[in-house]
Amino acid sequence: MAQALAGFRPSRRTPAEPVPLDRARHRVPAAPVTAPHALPGFARSTVDGYAVRAADTYGVSDGLPGYLQLTGAVLMGPVIGPVIGTAPAVTVGPGAAVSMPTGGVLPPGADAVVMIEYTQQVMPGTIEVVRPVAPGEGVVRADEDAAPGAELVPAGRPLRAQDLAMLAAAGVTELLVHVRPRVTIFSTGDEVVPPEVITLRPGQVRDATAVALAAMVADAGGEPVPGGIVPDDPAALEAALRPALTASDLIVISAGSSVGARDETAGVVGRLGEIWCHGIAVKPGKPTLLAECAGVPLIGLPGNPRSALVVFRLLGVPLVRLVGGGTAPPAEPSVRARLARDLPSAAGRLDVIQVRVSDGVATPVFGPSALLSVLTAADGYVIIPEEATGLDAGTEVEVTIYR
Amino acid sequence: MAQALAGFRPSRRTPAEPVPLDRARHRVPAAPVTAPHALPGFARSTVDGYAVRAADTYGVSDGLPGYLQLTGAVLMGPVIGPVIGTAPAVTVGPGAAVSMPTGGVLPPGADAVVMIEYTQQVMPGTIEVVRPVAPGEGVVRADEDAAPGAELVPAGRPLRAQDLAMLAAAGVTELLVHVRPRVTIFSTGDEVVPPEVITLRPGQVRDATAVALAAMVADAGGEPVPGGIVPDDPAALEAALRPALTASDLIVISAGSSVGARDETAGVVGRLGEIWCHGIAVKPGKPTLLAECAGVPLIGLPGNPRSALVVFRLLGVPLVRLVGGGTAPPAEPSVRARLARDLPSAAGRLDVIQVRVSDGVATPVFGPSALLSVLTAADGYVIIPEEATGLDAGTEVEVTIYR
Repeated sequence: MAQALAGFRPSRRTPAEPVPLDRARHRVPAAPVTAPHALPGFARSTVDGYAVRAADTYGVSDGLPGYLQLTGAVLMGPVIGPVIGTAPAVTVGPGAAVSMPTGGVLPPGADAVVMIEYTQQVMPGTIEVVRPVAPGEGVVRADEDAAPGAELVPAGRPLRAQDLAMLAAAGVTELLVHVRPRVTIFSTGDEVVPPEVITLRPGQVRDATAVALAAMVADAGGEPVPGGIVPDDPAALEAALRPALTASDLIVISAGSSVGARDETAGVVGRLGEIWCHGIAVKPGKPTLLAECAGVPLIGLPGNPRSALVVFRLLGVPLVRLVGGGTAPPAEPSVRARLARDLPSAAGRLDVIQVRVSDGVATPVFGPSALLSVLTAADGYVIIPEEATGLDAGTEVEVTIYR
Repeated sequence: MAQALAGFRPSRRTPAEPVPLDRARHRVPAAPVTAPHALPGFARSTVDGYAVRAADTYGVSDGLPGYLQLTGAVLMGPVIGPVIGTAPAVTVGPGAAVSMPTGGVLPPGADAVVMIEYTQQVMPGTIEVVRPVAPGEGVVRADEDAAPGAELVPAGRPLRAQDLAMLAAAGVTELLVHVRPRVTIFSTGDEVVPPEVITLRPGQVRDATAVALAAMVADAGGEPVPGGIVPDDPAALEAALRPALTASDLIVISAGSSVGARDETAGVVGRLGEIWCHGIAVKPGKPTLLAECAGVPLIGLPGNPRSALVVFRLLGVPLVRLVGGGTAPPAEPSVRARLARDLPSAAGRLDVIQVRVSDGVATPVFGPSALLSVLTAADGYVIIPEEATGLDAGTEVEVTIYR
């Protein structure tokens, strides 16, 4: 299982496409984006106060204030023309102070801003200062947020809210991102019917897996493509897979759950490409198939929905991210909790145990792997690694939370 | 701050609307959805093997096998007609065994399935059994996944992949969910220009906040509505807010960062509704405003983008979820890490400290609150609660990871 998780690294990557910034949330940059110019682009005040020459404040204190001449005021907003009082029109000379709002342009000559709290206007035109400032205090430099050419966002990491903010600040309103990987999802089985079917014949089940796989694909940044339900017939499966290989970046098949159906899936996939592994040491999820067909990675999932969803989360979601250009998997929500009871596990097999979490206690939810209700009742899951033979009640475990 | 986080609970909720199941990912059910019938709807085999009467296997072992008569085979797929061998046409009588695939319909008369591993066909028509089974073994009951009327998904919890699977299995292909809350986002400030502006005049800054707030709103299940940039003028702000109040479920204003601009925002909001609090004990983010105007909650954020994004994550995201009908906030990704250095904090103030995380060590990223690069350089953040006066280097902390 660890080998399957770490070792299957198909080389396929989606190409780059431009997207506007306001549609770039969670998209994966295809190349680093660098700053076209310095940010913020001008030295700014970070406080409300007075722009000064720092040297004019050295040694001042409550007991021994300094006095500066108020020579102007910087206002917020752009400098439209040579308006008296706005930044370019006023210079801070020795012994002078210029009134500043937070965010205002630092006027020439000034190298610091004294917070208004440490000043008072003792008479019209004269400012008393009771705290010294060092050069640079109360100011961000013109290139302090980003120097020209600095990397604003790296390639391969899905864009977070603050990354969009930084790009907007730099005027980057379009960027190259990886195309969302197209993930074609097939369900197989003569007994499987679409969810829309209201009345089932004995033995029929509705396709529960496809809609859930589509949701996980979308969460991982992929574009789910419905492949439909294919009967348990090798010729039908091959006829469905061949066109999908040219239209997909990844193919997912939730295979028939009987031994015969599984073998038929493997047979067809083996004819279309190379099987990387068939059967992995994970419970639930043993009959999983990993393959690559004509450059398209393919996952064959167990037939029962619960096993299929467990395995796809472990193996499929990272593959969608990988093919979509992601180089660092984003963190999953998790909590620490203490096990309510012993969890047995066979050595050499990775176990995925669904749990409810309440007040720091993780209570396992058990049931046959055919039951979806085990998954819907769970808040998350605990992994018992291959080398462990189980976990004792009271052990602190990391629970990955479903979302 | 704790009061602001917990205490501001506006009563507005979005109404319900129907959505098709395949577009219901992460939507919030407006009412619990119950099972229209039993699931899976028929007793199914969970293994490949033989359907038997459990009593016929009692006491068998490797040394003392039992022998059963093979009287038929259940095939996968729906039962189309009275085909010999499929479920309804075959009954398991005393001493009989019927061949079963995983997922197949349990035939009448049988109450268990013996795994094929514990059997062999010793001669045509005779099955040797070497392990006993208890009634119900190897079988899921007809109502074991859900009894008729059982709750499939609760109201108020955003739908996860497995919830969609369960609904599909039950044939629920449309359900009532809360309408996505419309969140109108205003930026204010004479110095603020749209991100599209290529060449800035001295003192101008591009609107970095709006696109990032929109992304956080969408992540929280809301529908961001761009309100545009409003100049630092009370009349202009009021003219922008009035129509937004009738078209929004929540309003967000990233206010001017200077004292005067903040006061003007509060003045306008105070005329349109009731201010719940103005100024919260959080760093960065002190000048935050919470209000309710004509039934619409409103958040006034600090003017600098970093503070605005920090505060919106803490206060705004939960509000979007609340208004959108969410009753349990989904878990955020987080990791435990040890602090690389001491973090001072004033008692009575909640501090949000950006950190990088590597090898289990959280290294704070410091810088003026005007710098967006502090946020883009960070992997996540640590909260120092109000009652703490700081955290020592080496303390194990919970880092909430940005995604």
